[in-house]
Amino acid sequence: MEISFKDIEALLFPRSVAVIGATNYFGKWGQLITSNIVAGNFRGPIYPINPHKEYLFGLKCYKSILEVPDKVDLVFVTIPAQRVMEVLKECAQKRVKSILMITSGFGETGEEGKRLQREMVEFLEREGILLVGPNTMGLISPYADLYATGPHTRPKKGDVAFVSQSGNLGNQLVFWATQQGIGISMFVGSGNEGMATYRDFLLYLERDPRTRIIVLYLEEIGDGRDLVSMAKRITQEKPILLLKGGRTKAGGKAAATHTGAVAGENRVFRGALRQAGIIEVSIPSELLELSAAFSSVPLPKGNRIGIVTLGGGWGVVTSDLCEEMGLLVPEIPEEIVRTIGRYLPDFWSKSNPVDLVGTRDPNAPLVAVEELLRWEGIDAVIVLGIVGRKDVVDLLVDSAKRIDPDTPPEFLKRVDEFAQNYEASFALRMVEFMEAYEKPVIGVSLTTSGEKIVREFEGKRYRGVFYQSPEQAVRSLKRMLEYKERRT
Amino acid sequence: MEISFKDIEALLFPRSVAVIGATNYFGKWGQLITSNIVAGNFRGPIYPINPHKEYLFGLKCYKSILEVPDKVDLVFVTIPAQRVMEVLKECAQKRVKSILMITSGFGETGEEGKRLQREMVEFLEREGILLVGPNTMGLISPYADLYATGPHTRPKKGDVAFVSQSGNLGNQLVFWATQQGIGISMFVGSGNEGMATYRDFLLYLERDPRTRIIVLYLEEIGDGRDLVSMAKRITQEKPILLLKGGRTKAGGKAAATHTGAVAGENRVFRGALRQAGIIEVSIPSELLELSAAFSSVPLPKGNRIGIVTLGGGWGVVTSDLCEEMGLLVPEIPEEIVRTIGRYLPDFWSKSNPVDLVGTRDPNAPLVAVEELLRWEGIDAVIVLGIVGRKDVVDLLVDSAKRIDPDTPPEFLKRVDEFAQNYEASFALRMVEFMEAYEKPVIGVSLTTSGEKIVREFEGKRYRGVFYQSPEQAVRSLKRMLEYKERRT
Repeated sequence: MEISFKDIEALLFPRSVAVIGATNYFGKWGQLITSNIVAGNFRGPIYPINPHKEYLFGLKCYKSILEVPDKVDLVFVTIPAQRVMEVLKECAQKRVKSILMITSGFGETGEEGKRLQREMVEFLEREGILLVGPNTMGLISPYADLYATGPHTRPKKGDVAFVSQSGNLGNQLVFWATQQGIGISMFVGSGNEGMATYRDFLLYLERDPRTRIIVLYLEEIGDGRDLVSMAKRITQEKPILLLKGGRTKAGGKAAATHTGAVAGENRVFRGALRQAGIIEVSIPSELLELSAAFSSVPLPKGNRIGIVTLGGGWGVVTSDLCEEMGLLVPEIPEEIVRTIGRYLPDFWSKSNPVDLVGTRDPNAPLVAVEELLRWEGIDAVIVLGIVGRKDVVDLLVDSAKRIDPDTPPEFLKRVDEFAQNYEASFALRMVEFMEAYEKPVIGVSLTTSGEKIVREFEGKRYRGVFYQSPEQAVRSLKRMLEYKERRT
Repeated sequence: MEISFKDIEALLFPRSVAVIGATNYFGKWGQLITSNIVAGNFRGPIYPINPHKEYLFGLKCYKSILEVPDKVDLVFVTIPAQRVMEVLKECAQKRVKSILMITSGFGETGEEGKRLQREMVEFLEREGILLVGPNTMGLISPYADLYATGPHTRPKKGDVAFVSQSGNLGNQLVFWATQQGIGISMFVGSGNEGMATYRDFLLYLERDPRTRIIVLYLEEIGDGRDLVSMAKRITQEKPILLLKGGRTKAGGKAAATHTGAVAGENRVFRGALRQAGIIEVSIPSELLELSAAFSSVPLPKGNRIGIVTLGGGWGVVTSDLCEEMGLLVPEIPEEIVRTIGRYLPDFWSKSNPVDLVGTRDPNAPLVAVEELLRWEGIDAVIVLGIVGRKDVVDLLVDSAKRIDPDTPPEFLKRVDEFAQNYEASFALRMVEFMEAYEKPVIGVSLTTSGEKIVREFEGKRYRGVFYQSPEQAVRSLKRMLEYKERRT
């Protein structure tokens, strides 16, 4: 069946949902999905279907979908494959709009499963009901307050869309995104793609105003020419980040047993994807890393990088990484050297990277970043070690509290607070600089203390991005530049 | 002067220390170093030297080193460069053994600084006093309970040694190591290397029984043939991990203003380093990643990797990464398939990667890992998503607590505890497997929740290593294998 924008919109914004196979048996799919929808505060009615229960999670239970007194837009199915056809017939009778089939044991398991899947899809097509799955791990639609995946991750509203043929990989990406402060517009595990495929979701996301960045995990691409021609168009407006599982013989073999994907799209084809503007990565965490930058900062207009660093070694390492990835670290004019120099001891580097030589002057990093951004010879700034320093201050304050009888506790408290507040205000200033100069600033926190990568400020067009490690900043700028250049 | 093993041993295990320039002015070097030594519980006497103070951090202060009533082995100097010669003369008179010169403004700043540095070094050589620095950020000697760096990071005792020409980069690496549970044998910032160079420390570490892994950050290598011949010998016993700052023109320029390093060791030379068994990385966090693996698990004897995964997508991605990095993911024999199959639903992958299809049987992952290790066709195992699952369980339990009136809180508490305990006991089992089979097992936690990479168990030869992301596991095994092959 032809799947329209409205079909997917109805899936992501149902007015009511039911779960066939709902249970409170802890850890079963029928429990995971139902309790997630309830705990996630879905705004419409939720109908658990289970013939042996009266109530589940404080909600009235129904023996079958046919007993539900009102309309049902979206039905989640978690019962075993053998019993699926029976309940689908009831769903058709009930005139539901969409089915999300968690149940596995279909096309990915062999001939009998394939037959069952065909039968199911043909039936639903005839009835005009949208099918997602089977063998999917659910969907998340934050703008509908609908959280319907196994893990109870509830990312905030944002502009990154995730479509994944692997449920566990997709869910884990969303989990990371949540931990890192990356907001999402939707997540769907497309599973075996019996009916709705990643292409349908791509076409939807192309037009979805909430989505600015599209992240794909695919094991089977299908008609590659189709993807290339779609991508050419979509990437003019929205970056597509792709992780292709099964690139190699070993990976392809694993994919065959996983989603039943047919491996073997070759290098030539993947070159075509790149030509079409798709940004391909080989490492899952890079999808997150790039999502953070693409969705939070302006695209760089060129490859000339300014580096501001609290310590020299990090400037050296970052310069090396820039040059190795094809970015330039240009020399800065005398005038900028003079302006920055007013805030630094005389023995500072007087060049790019700007080494702040551990300065404690709170204005120095701000002046250095702004002077670089202001200059037409710089396209982007990487700033290392300003945000993150409070972790070190914490350690110092802790020592002083224990062993220094002469330094008053109020002073130490103020030092600690200053460090905290300074970092928050510094992150905000970076966002304001990006608005003022329309150039990206990427921070590197140099700590693994578990702070979020993305820092959002009310009413601001951009967000602060603070990676842990310099290669993440360099790689992101490189990839953003590639995207920009291919697009134009 | 010829620097001996005993000279460095005396530096790292002083019986008493003094700080010239000690102060409690918060954030100054004289405060950072002194308070760190005190708060770190250095076991010997600590003598703060400051003519204007009676007491600092509860310790009696002295007007000059000459006033100290007892012997002083190691002196930290933090006063400005212009006044250094004067106090060094006093140190010579006092017959101190070693000087660690924090003070900067020497060789890295131009002709006058170079002259001053030469004068200082010549004087100390004549007096037979060891000099570390100038322009260093200190040292850490955990086995002496001596923590004497700017940031008050206090890593635990372990077997990884860090030598860094950049203090801030070295300190940050040690900070990460501490956050990730990696124990260290020593850290020294060698700074400008006026007298003691990284070579002296390398020769010491070669013989130091506490050190099993050597990590270097170098901006200037000096006599490359010397390093190559040393490395050839040392890497027979101990891996050397190297990050070379200033590999590129941009990085070399930055290094010149930083430590005054002369750039330009070329690719041919770096090829020779690799031939000598040195493991070179370009990204700082890889030094940590590799330290964790090299110091915690046995070396793989070959490139055949078994993969055990909680979900299929991660198995696919990891297989791709293995093949792309030259590792094999071999097919497993029918017998192993049968044994593992007893613990899994019928629709499991029946191949390598072993996809546990989200099983909740606590024995399944253990059986799968052990069966692979036991087989002679596998050299190492990567296990994805078992440790780390408790983060997801936490979310489920939290939802259930809020919305499920029918599931008793004691049950949820037990679920949570089981998940916690299971992961601890799983990590321990992995360590026991490594002892039994002498093959590495690397875990991937698939979460950014801030748990440590390295998990140590009392009395065990190996430690659990659980990275966040699969490429870290694959990369580590690849590098360990390279090391092993070059060595033999």
